[in-house]
Amino acid sequence: MTTEHPTALQPEMPATRWGDPALASGLPDGVRDLVGLVFPIADTPALADVVVPASRLSAAQVDGLRALLGEENVVTDDEVRRLRTRGKSTPDLLRQRRGDLGDAPDAVVRPGGHDDVVAVLAWAQENRVAVVPFGGGTAVTGGLVADPAGLAGILSLDLGRMRGLLALDPVSSTATLEPGLRGPEAEALLAAHGLMLGHFPQSFEYATIGGFAATRSSGQSSAGYGRFDAMVVALRVATPVGEVRLGASPANASGPDLRELFLGSEGAFGVITEVTVRVRPLPEVKEYEGWRWSSFAAGADAMRALAQSDLLPTVLRLSDENETAINLADPEAIGGEGNPDCLMIVGYEGTPAAVAAKKAAVTAALTALGGAPQGTGPGEAWAHGRFNAPYLRDSLLDNGVLVETLETVTFWSNRENLYARVKAALEAALPGAMVLCHVSHVYATGCSLYFTVAAPGGEDPLAAWLPAKAAACEAIVAAGASITHHHAVGTDHKPYLTAEIGDLGATVLRAVKRAVDPTGILNPGVLVP
Amino acid sequence: MTTEHPTALQPEMPATRWGDPALASGLPDGVRDLVGLVFPIADTPALADVVVPASRLSAAQVDGLRALLGEENVVTDDEVRRLRTRGKSTPDLLRQRRGDLGDAPDAVVRPGGHDDVVAVLAWAQENRVAVVPFGGGTAVTGGLVADPAGLAGILSLDLGRMRGLLALDPVSSTATLEPGLRGPEAEALLAAHGLMLGHFPQSFEYATIGGFAATRSSGQSSAGYGRFDAMVVALRVATPVGEVRLGASPANASGPDLRELFLGSEGAFGVITEVTVRVRPLPEVKEYEGWRWSSFAAGADAMRALAQSDLLPTVLRLSDENETAINLADPEAIGGEGNPDCLMIVGYEGTPAAVAAKKAAVTAALTALGGAPQGTGPGEAWAHGRFNAPYLRDSLLDNGVLVETLETVTFWSNRENLYARVKAALEAALPGAMVLCHVSHVYATGCSLYFTVAAPGGEDPLAAWLPAKAAACEAIVAAGASITHHHAVGTDHKPYLTAEIGDLGATVLRAVKRAVDPTGILNPGVLVP
Repeated sequence: MTTEHPTALQPEMPATRWGDPALASGLPDGVRDLVGLVFPIADTPALADVVVPASRLSAAQVDGLRALLGEENVVTDDEVRRLRTRGKSTPDLLRQRRGDLGDAPDAVVRPGGHDDVVAVLAWAQENRVAVVPFGGGTAVTGGLVADPAGLAGILSLDLGRMRGLLALDPVSSTATLEPGLRGPEAEALLAAHGLMLGHFPQSFEYATIGGFAATRSSGQSSAGYGRFDAMVVALRVATPVGEVRLGASPANASGPDLRELFLGSEGAFGVITEVTVRVRPLPEVKEYEGWRWSSFAAGADAMRALAQSDLLPTVLRLSDENETAINLADPEAIGGEGNPDCLMIVGYEGTPAAVAAKKAAVTAALTALGGAPQGTGPGEAWAHGRFNAPYLRDSLLDNGVLVETLETVTFWSNRENLYARVKAALEAALPGAMVLCHVSHVYATGCSLYFTVAAPGGEDPLAAWLPAKAAACEAIVAAGASITHHHAVGTDHKPYLTAEIGDLGATVLRAVKRAVDPTGILNPGVLVP
Repeated sequence: MTTEHPTALQPEMPATRWGDPALASGLPDGVRDLVGLVFPIADTPALADVVVPASRLSAAQVDGLRALLGEENVVTDDEVRRLRTRGKSTPDLLRQRRGDLGDAPDAVVRPGGHDDVVAVLAWAQENRVAVVPFGGGTAVTGGLVADPAGLAGILSLDLGRMRGLLALDPVSSTATLEPGLRGPEAEALLAAHGLMLGHFPQSFEYATIGGFAATRSSGQSSAGYGRFDAMVVALRVATPVGEVRLGASPANASGPDLRELFLGSEGAFGVITEVTVRVRPLPEVKEYEGWRWSSFAAGADAMRALAQSDLLPTVLRLSDENETAINLADPEAIGGEGNPDCLMIVGYEGTPAAVAAKKAAVTAALTALGGAPQGTGPGEAWAHGRFNAPYLRDSLLDNGVLVETLETVTFWSNRENLYARVKAALEAALPGAMVLCHVSHVYATGCSLYFTVAAPGGEDPLAAWLPAKAAACEAIVAAGASITHHHAVGTDHKPYLTAEIGDLGATVLRAVKRAVDPTGILNPGVLVP
C-alpha cells in the first residue's frame, strides 16, 4: 500500500497483462499438465509493431484542452493512448496481444479535481467529443469502449490525479474520497485514522473508488461489510448540464433515491467526482477458516441458512467441486481423489469480542448443518492469494489456455437451475472446457454465482470465447437471473439488459441519459440500451 | 388482524378522525390540565352540512369506467368521495372538520388487479383525468392531493380490492403481495405460513403495502428488520405507457437500481401493483425493555455506538426529555420531577438463542455507555400503545389542542444542530408549544428525529400550524438534513425537495416523469418539483 499522491501519469499496468510486471507468476506446478499447450498466445507487441490510430483531435483542440488543464495533463502520444485502450477482460487482453488498437482514445486528459472535470465536460460538449472516465482500467465488460459514432473523437478522462481524502467525519463514520483513489490507497489514507472502508474485490489493487461506485462493485468481504453501493451515503457527480450532490442523509423518504440512479451508471450519466462512504474501525482480529461440505448444494444451503438468520461472517464464499479441486493451492488438504468435496471460506473480522461471538454462533450453525471445519489453513491460503487470479490468467494465456470469468445473481430457489444452465452452456460452447464456480456473495434472498472457464485457446481464442460468452449470457437470461452481479453492463452485457429491466426500464434509462447528457458525449454506447 | 378479503368498499376510517371509531380514546388523565382548552374544534360535519363539489366526470365517462371495472367498482356518491379526500395529516383533518372538500376526487374506482389498473390508466390518459392511488388513506404530507390543472378531473384509484398474497417462495424467503393489503392483513397472510414481514410504522393498522413502497416507509422495528425499501426485492408497476417489472435478483450490477426509482415515487411514476418482499420466520420471542439515560445526547450517543458496531436490536428508540416526561404512560417510573431523564426502548425479537445472544451483547454495551436498565415495564407499555398516538391526536383536537408530527434525518455529527434548529423554529412559530422528540430510526452514519408538537389551537389552528410547519421545514433545509425520513414528499414537502436534490436532481425526476407519464395524469402536483 502507498499513500503517495502520484503526480505523473503512471501506466502501472501493461496493456496486455494484469498488475505489476515484477509480480507476474508463471504457471503453478501441475497446471501445465492439465492444459493442452498447442497455441501459445504472443504477448504485447512492441509499439513499433502496432498501429495506433492517429488522434482525431486537431492541434487547436489539443491546445484548447491544454489551456484548461495544463500542458502535462493532455497526452496524445501513442504509448499512453495504447495503455488507455479498453480494460482487462480476456477479450480486451487478446485484442491487445493482437495489436488491435481500434478503440484507442484520441487523447488522455487528467483533471485535477471536480472543477477540471466540469471544464472538460463543457469543452467536450462544445466539441462533440466523447468522454470515457478511466480509473484503474480494470473494467471487464467493455465499459471503456465508447462508440464515437457521430462524435469527433474520444477523450479518456484519467482520474489518476484525483486521489484525495477530502473529508473525514469520525462522528458519523463517513469519509469523502476522490474517484481516482485505488483500493489500497484509500485504505491507507483511512488506516492513518484507524479506519477502513472494507471493500476488497479481486481488482482491489488497481480498481478505484469512482469505478466501484460507477459499476456497483462487490467485494470479497461483502457478507460482513456489504456491497460498495451499500457503503455509499453521498455522491457528487459532474454532468455536461451541471453538477448534482446527492445524499443529504443516510436514508430518507425524499422521493426516489437518486443516488441509486448514479451508482451503476458507468460513466453514462456523469462523472462521479466525490464519493462519501461509511467507514469502520480497523479490525483488531482477522480469522479465515475453511469448512468442507459434501456437495455444492449442501454448502449453498448452509450459506442460505446463515443469510436468512442474519448471521453472516465477514467473508463467506463457497467453491463448487471443480473449483475446489482445481483452484486451491492444496486441494489434497480438503478432499482426496474421487472425493469432490466443496470448500467454503469463512472469515471473521472485528473486535476480539465481536469475532468470538460471531464465530461461536456461525460455528454452531455450520456444524449443525453438516459442515466439517478445516481449520485456518485453507482460509489463510485463500487470503494470501485472494488478488492473484488475474496474474495466473496472464500465464495461462501465455501458454495457450483461454481463461475468463463471468458472474450472475439470482434468488435462492433458482440457484441450481441457473448454475446448471450456465455451466451447460459454457461446456457446450467450448469443447474441452473446464468450468469452475463459486458463490461469491450472499443475500437473505439469493446469491451470486461466479464462473471461471478454462479451455484450450486454439488458433483463435477470441473467436472461441465470444460465442461461449453469448451462450452463457443467453442461459442467464433464460434462467431469469441478472446479467451481472458486480462486473457491470458495459458494452458486453448491453444486449441483454433490456431482457432484465424491460422496455420501459430501458426507456427510463434513455430519458435520464437525455436529461443529463443531451448531446450524448458521456461514455456513448455503454450501458444504455 | 383479519385475513378476510373484503369485496365491498369499506370506509373504515371517518373522514376527520383516525381508525376505528369504537377504539377512540378520550384524553388521558392529567393531559387535560396541561393544555388550554379554549377553542374546542368541531368534529366532522354531517354530509348534509358540507358541500362536496359535483363530480366533473360526465355520465358517459362514468359509464366508460363501469364498462371496464363493473358497476359496483366505480363510485361517485358524495360520502365515498368525502372519505377519499386527502389523508390524515392534522391539516387534512382540520380541513375536513371545517367541511372543506375542495380536493374531493370526482370518482372512486376500484381495480381488481394489475390488468384493471392498466385499463384505468389507459382510460385516464385518453380522458385526461388524473389518477391518485389510494391505499390506506394514511398519507400525512399531502400525497393524496392532486392538482387537476389542465385535466378533466381526478380519479381516486382505491386499491382495496387488490389484497392478495400472490406468491410465496419459502426457499428464497420472499413473498409477493398486492398493494392494497393493510399491514395487519399482510402479516396475517404470512403468519399462516409461519412468516412475517416485520414492518410496523405507526400507521400499520391502516397503511398498505403499496403505500409503504410508494413512500419509502420505515417502521418501529427498522433497527432489526430494516426500512421497507430495504425489504423490497421486486416490483411490478403499471404506467400509462406500459408496465415494468424490476428485481431479477436481490442485488446486481445491471446498471442503476431502477427499483429505487419507483420506490418513493408516490404514485407520480406509476401504480405499484405487486411488491415482492423479503420475509422472515415469525419470532419465537419478543422482549421490550426500557433504558434510562442522563440526557438525550447521552442516549443518542449510545444508539450511535450500537449502530456503528453493527449491534442493533430489533427495536431501538429514544425519547428526549420532554417526550419522556409527557408522552409515556408512567413517566414517574423512569425519573422524578426535576429529573428529566430520557427513556430508550430496546426490543429483541427472534429465536431464543438469537435474542439471548443479542441481548447479552447490547446489554453489555449499553451498560458500559452509562445506561440504566428499567426492566420490561416501560417496554411493554410502549408495545401496548405503539399504534395509539393518532387516536390521542383526535381527542386533543376535539379539546382544542393543535397537535401534529414531523420528522427528518441527518448524519450523526449534525444531530444536535438539527434538533436544536427544528425545536427552536417550532417554539418560535407556535407560542406556548410543547415540542417533543424521539430518535425513531438509526443507521451507522446517522439517525432520524421525529417531532411531536402540541400547542393551543386558538381560533384557527390551521392558520397557526402552517407557518410553524414552514418554519420547521426551513430549519431542516438550513441544517442540511433531509426534508423527510419516512413520511414522504407529497405536496407539503415539495417546495423543499429541490434544496435537497438540487436543480439537476429535480430535472432528472421531471425527465423520468415525462418518460413514464407523458400526459401527466399520475398524481399530478405530487412529489415532482
